[in-house]
Amino acid sequence: MNWDNRFASRTAQMKRSTVREILKLTAQPGVISFAGGLPAPEFFPVDRIREVSDIVLAERGREVLQYSTSEGMPELRGWIAERMSKGALKISPDNILILSGSQQALDLVGRVLLDERDVVIVENPTYVGMLSAWKPYDIQFTAVPTDQDGMIVDELEPLLQPGDAKMLYTIPSFQNPQGTTMSRPRRAKLAALLQQYNLPVYEDDPYGELYFDGEKMPSVLEMEAAQRGTTSIEDCTTIYAGTFSKTLTPGLRVGWVAAAYPVIDKLVQAKQATDLHTSTLSQFITYEMIRDGKFLDDHVANLRKVYRERRDLMLATMDRCFPAEVTWTRPSGGLFTMVTMPEHLNAVDVLQEALKQNVAFVPCDGFFIGETGHNTFRLNYSNARPEMIVTGIERLGAVLKSLLTQA
Amino acid sequence: MNWDNRFASRTAQMKRSTVREILKLTAQPGVISFAGGLPAPEFFPVDRIREVSDIVLAERGREVLQYSTSEGMPELRGWIAERMSKGALKISPDNILILSGSQQALDLVGRVLLDERDVVIVENPTYVGMLSAWKPYDIQFTAVPTDQDGMIVDELEPLLQPGDAKMLYTIPSFQNPQGTTMSRPRRAKLAALLQQYNLPVYEDDPYGELYFDGEKMPSVLEMEAAQRGTTSIEDCTTIYAGTFSKTLTPGLRVGWVAAAYPVIDKLVQAKQATDLHTSTLSQFITYEMIRDGKFLDDHVANLRKVYRERRDLMLATMDRCFPAEVTWTRPSGGLFTMVTMPEHLNAVDVLQEALKQNVAFVPCDGFFIGETGHNTFRLNYSNARPEMIVTGIERLGAVLKSLLTQA
Repeated sequence: MNWDNRFASRTAQMKRSTVREILKLTAQPGVISFAGGLPAPEFFPVDRIREVSDIVLAERGREVLQYSTSEGMPELRGWIAERMSKGALKISPDNILILSGSQQALDLVGRVLLDERDVVIVENPTYVGMLSAWKPYDIQFTAVPTDQDGMIVDELEPLLQPGDAKMLYTIPSFQNPQGTTMSRPRRAKLAALLQQYNLPVYEDDPYGELYFDGEKMPSVLEMEAAQRGTTSIEDCTTIYAGTFSKTLTPGLRVGWVAAAYPVIDKLVQAKQATDLHTSTLSQFITYEMIRDGKFLDDHVANLRKVYRERRDLMLATMDRCFPAEVTWTRPSGGLFTMVTMPEHLNAVDVLQEALKQNVAFVPCDGFFIGETGHNTFRLNYSNARPEMIVTGIERLGAVLKSLLTQA
Repeated sequence: MNWDNRFASRTAQMKRSTVREILKLTAQPGVISFAGGLPAPEFFPVDRIREVSDIVLAERGREVLQYSTSEGMPELRGWIAERMSKGALKISPDNILILSGSQQALDLVGRVLLDERDVVIVENPTYVGMLSAWKPYDIQFTAVPTDQDGMIVDELEPLLQPGDAKMLYTIPSFQNPQGTTMSRPRRAKLAALLQQYNLPVYEDDPYGELYFDGEKMPSVLEMEAAQRGTTSIEDCTTIYAGTFSKTLTPGLRVGWVAAAYPVIDKLVQAKQATDLHTSTLSQFITYEMIRDGKFLDDHVANLRKVYRERRDLMLATMDRCFPAEVTWTRPSGGLFTMVTMPEHLNAVDVLQEALKQNVAFVPCDGFFIGETGHNTFRLNYSNARPEMIVTGIERLGAVLKSLLTQA
């Protein structure tokens, strides 16, 4: 049976995620991996999850294991709505849809909003999982350049003037792959542009809670509401996607989207057709863990501390061991830094050499719009223990020096 | 913000699932609901799930809560592959993809195989959740009539001759909504047609294990392999979708698809873009429960007994209380019977009257291709306790008699 001529034409746009394929290689023992976007499993609240699993199964077992609504567990929606209501902005549970991780928000928003050959404006580089989700719609991605302060919003306005952009996609906080954050003045400028052009924005915020310095930056959604002088998300064009994968654990697969009700209403319909609803057990466990607020706050405070130490250690080791021709971003939160090598080096070749030294990372070419980025790669510091960070970065420094000496 | 002109054109094809919307109404206390396709929660293996949740979290907590591969847990894929290998047919773990329930198989197969305006051949009536998943592709559904023995396969061949059908969709065992089963001779005829036309078939089999009489009927996949004289699923055009929702519990959201590797390979790529992977915890719990085989076998044997008793009670009460002008199917397994009323009655109107008596069901017009089926509705017997079955069917009989007397 030859299946090749049976597949849909959009299937040609699909390819295996490079990141996830590299992750498989790095599962081998002995490999020091900076490749994944994985949280540190040694800080998973395993005991607490054992406790609450037992509680919810003992107290509400039949409900926990039955089919449930596509919208998600009402208590969990209510908790998220309350948590997201800040200052003047009030969010109702009806504006929250529970999802099977925030990758699903990309999938469903793509389905509901994107027509074939639509124009979507993105940061360059941008999240490769968004590209995988939306490329099958044959989207025309238009790139806004970025720097240490995130998207260069001044370069956004000319892209809005043709009026053909369907949506803007941004990871404003601790971006994947760069680890950089859109500054507050740029967020304010973006909010003003949203008001002026009424452009839908997809705010992808998996890492926002993992800030290392000062306070949490206001979300684009909050800035937009303030700019518009509204208390209601119904007046906003921002579609906000959040997740518990980075603050609690990814294995439960619980995320959410917050948006104006007409958007949620369509997303619910798309979710019904996609997977009916998110695991009832995962939702109950999540809610039981976070309902008092305190456990989550303490847990995330600890993660911030641990990840900050790992970032510091990685950057210090890079300062010490990486050759002068190589540069990298200095993240103030999140999981990643991105390295830029001289143009004549290709990160895929460097990865081959690094793997010989049992060190892995993710080449970033797949994260870029246009034929660029071949000389960049992403390093994750959340998932490696301190001694591994030192050893791995030392080895990587040696690989880079050796390649630059040869060249 | 007016969102209406922002949505993708395919979004116009989406609508809320009638079934899931009715389910919300019926959640009110006092309502006797035959509406959902829900298993009986009083037989959920809650204690066993408490036990195994604790075991997997205690023994492999960090792994259970971390990101995992899109393909699914290797041990679970291996278990399913071995279970599905029957007689000459051998299935490898590489032919199995774990999904977040079997609705997701519909979604992913649609994405990977269906182009806009493709022709898909279906039983009439057919599963409304498949229609929701595939209608956004603007599919042309061609209907094969059905009777008590399932799809009338003799009427299928003329539909294959134009050569433009992309796929056949069937629920051969205890179909939703009818509860009917494709007879063995018809399965053999279908297998012969598959060999002749090499048509991809989507075999949706959520209910196959819930047979009440005799032995499990061989799947279309097994019949096709036998017809082709092959031991390998690689030679078959059947894509088989299974689930643990009806045999264990739906709340964990674990299903799977089995198919030739080229199909699995594309489905994995689509799954990566959709939700990365299925809940790691749900997969570990499922595997820990079923790994010895015996627990699942005993549990399903008990479900068969309980559901058979409920079917018997519902059919006997219908025989006693329903007016002579009304007919219904006699399922030999699964969860449903479908009722056909005289043409002048509309099931949506009857539902309004029934709800006044606190009884609910699902009108089947949404399950039909073409302008037919308005006078049919689906009754579920798995989810109602025996005393509720008697009371509910008695009330429904009275409603039907009253409406037929008025008319």
